[in-house]
Amino acid sequence: MITSTGNAQVKELARLMKKSRAREEAGVFLVEGPRMTGELVADETWKSHMEKVYLSDSRAKRYMEEIPGLRGCRTEILSDTVFSYVSDTKTPQGILAVVRRREYGMQDILGNDPGSALVAVLDNLQDPGNMGTIFRTAEAAGATGILMSSDCVDIYNPKVVRSTMGALLRMPFLCAEDLTAAIKELKSAGIRTYAAHLAGEKFYDQENYVGGTAFLIGNEGNGLRESVAECADCRIKIPMAGKAESLNAAVAASILMYEVSRQKRN
Amino acid sequence: MITSTGNAQVKELARLMKKSRAREEAGVFLVEGPRMTGELVADETWKSHMEKVYLSDSRAKRYMEEIPGLRGCRTEILSDTVFSYVSDTKTPQGILAVVRRREYGMQDILGNDPGSALVAVLDNLQDPGNMGTIFRTAEAAGATGILMSSDCVDIYNPKVVRSTMGALLRMPFLCAEDLTAAIKELKSAGIRTYAAHLAGEKFYDQENYVGGTAFLIGNEGNGLRESVAECADCRIKIPMAGKAESLNAAVAASILMYEVSRQKRN
Repeated sequence: MITSTGNAQVKELARLMKKSRAREEAGVFLVEGPRMTGELVADETWKSHMEKVYLSDSRAKRYMEEIPGLRGCRTEILSDTVFSYVSDTKTPQGILAVVRRREYGMQDILGNDPGSALVAVLDNLQDPGNMGTIFRTAEAAGATGILMSSDCVDIYNPKVVRSTMGALLRMPFLCAEDLTAAIKELKSAGIRTYAAHLAGEKFYDQENYVGGTAFLIGNEGNGLRESVAECADCRIKIPMAGKAESLNAAVAASILMYEVSRQKRN
Repeated sequence: MITSTGNAQVKELARLMKKSRAREEAGVFLVEGPRMTGELVADETWKSHMEKVYLSDSRAKRYMEEIPGLRGCRTEILSDTVFSYVSDTKTPQGILAVVRRREYGMQDILGNDPGSALVAVLDNLQDPGNMGTIFRTAEAAGATGILMSSDCVDIYNPKVVRSTMGALLRMPFLCAEDLTAAIKELKSAGIRTYAAHLAGEKFYDQENYVGGTAFLIGNEGNGLRESVAECADCRIKIPMAGKAESLNAAVAASILMYEVSRQKRN
């Protein structure tokens, strides 16, 4: 059992928790809590990506019994104090996994049939809660994947990981250095691209989304960059009553993705 | 100009910022930033509710020139340091208003024509961001008002006020000690009530919402209390693909309210 925050492993863990750059250089991300860790070990591919699972002294025995498959992983026990020190949450749940990242390609985010793909394209999205919520809703709405500009909030930020409610482990995503080039690639694959835009010519529900569809969603404060909006086949708007001037980015993405789900069912 | 955080007014302001109870006892709430303060002074009713506007030394002159109507308000200048001390934000914008609350009744949240009312009913909603987002989206979707249980997060929490993006000043709302009694009142007024529920019999988009409609939205972790869900005329569910188990409360409310907006337009 590790009982000192001066321990080299603990220091590295704290660094991985806090620094996006450190996580990227190591090619890993951190997952906290029994729920998501349980999902990781239950999935063959993810299980092969587990580097180590850290358990708090007081919960270790329980988790080893309750989470099938945990015994096959490399584990390390931390004293409760040390665990609290590395945890990102106020009330640590006593289990934390270091996981090697998976790499997805354009094929993955389009799914098996590009003719019915649904992709959320995120341009410079900054809020961790919005990013997590979009992953969560995208999965529920039946999206095939997420494409994002490389200047979005770090998808492996612990708050993002948490707020995806596990969707991060199930939803393929691609981070593009050149978002406009990636959007062109989507279009070449036959995906129709729609920019959610205040200056949209049509309301979002006047278009047909039964074929391969991508929605371009902009930054919280500034909306889509013009260079990105220009790539879209069509600009659509979500009508707004009252004096409302915009919608939250995750809300806008959710309304659009669920309109696709609605059309496909009807 | 007030230059000490020991000043009695400053102490009271800091207390109002931090404590829900203090705000309630004083019957006020706080609004930060030039945008929302400008909206307050531009509206006759709200202007009559302004108790005092606090300005930071470095911004006072600018705001007095830029915000029409501010001259008619009682103002007080704080040194920049004192302003930062009372502000709830990391980068204070230098203007903060103390505003007397408005009281709304059931009639207000139903609007002029209950036959086309749209009400969001919130049961024990806890997250300030979700509460703010629901106000913001409700206005945009054309809702007439919001009904909430008295154990929801304080609507006058500074983070809630901020995240409504001004909708708090425009959207009537009612806080009910007895939510089930208030829902019965809605029903007596001819409003059809729908519980957003994982065990819904129908998908949300299979119902007709062109008449007076209310959606019951539950707590983030636990969903609707059974005693509240039981009040509904009908339970509806939002279909979920993949392994998603639930949606964010604000996202669920947004999808439902925009379905009403869509049906009314089509």
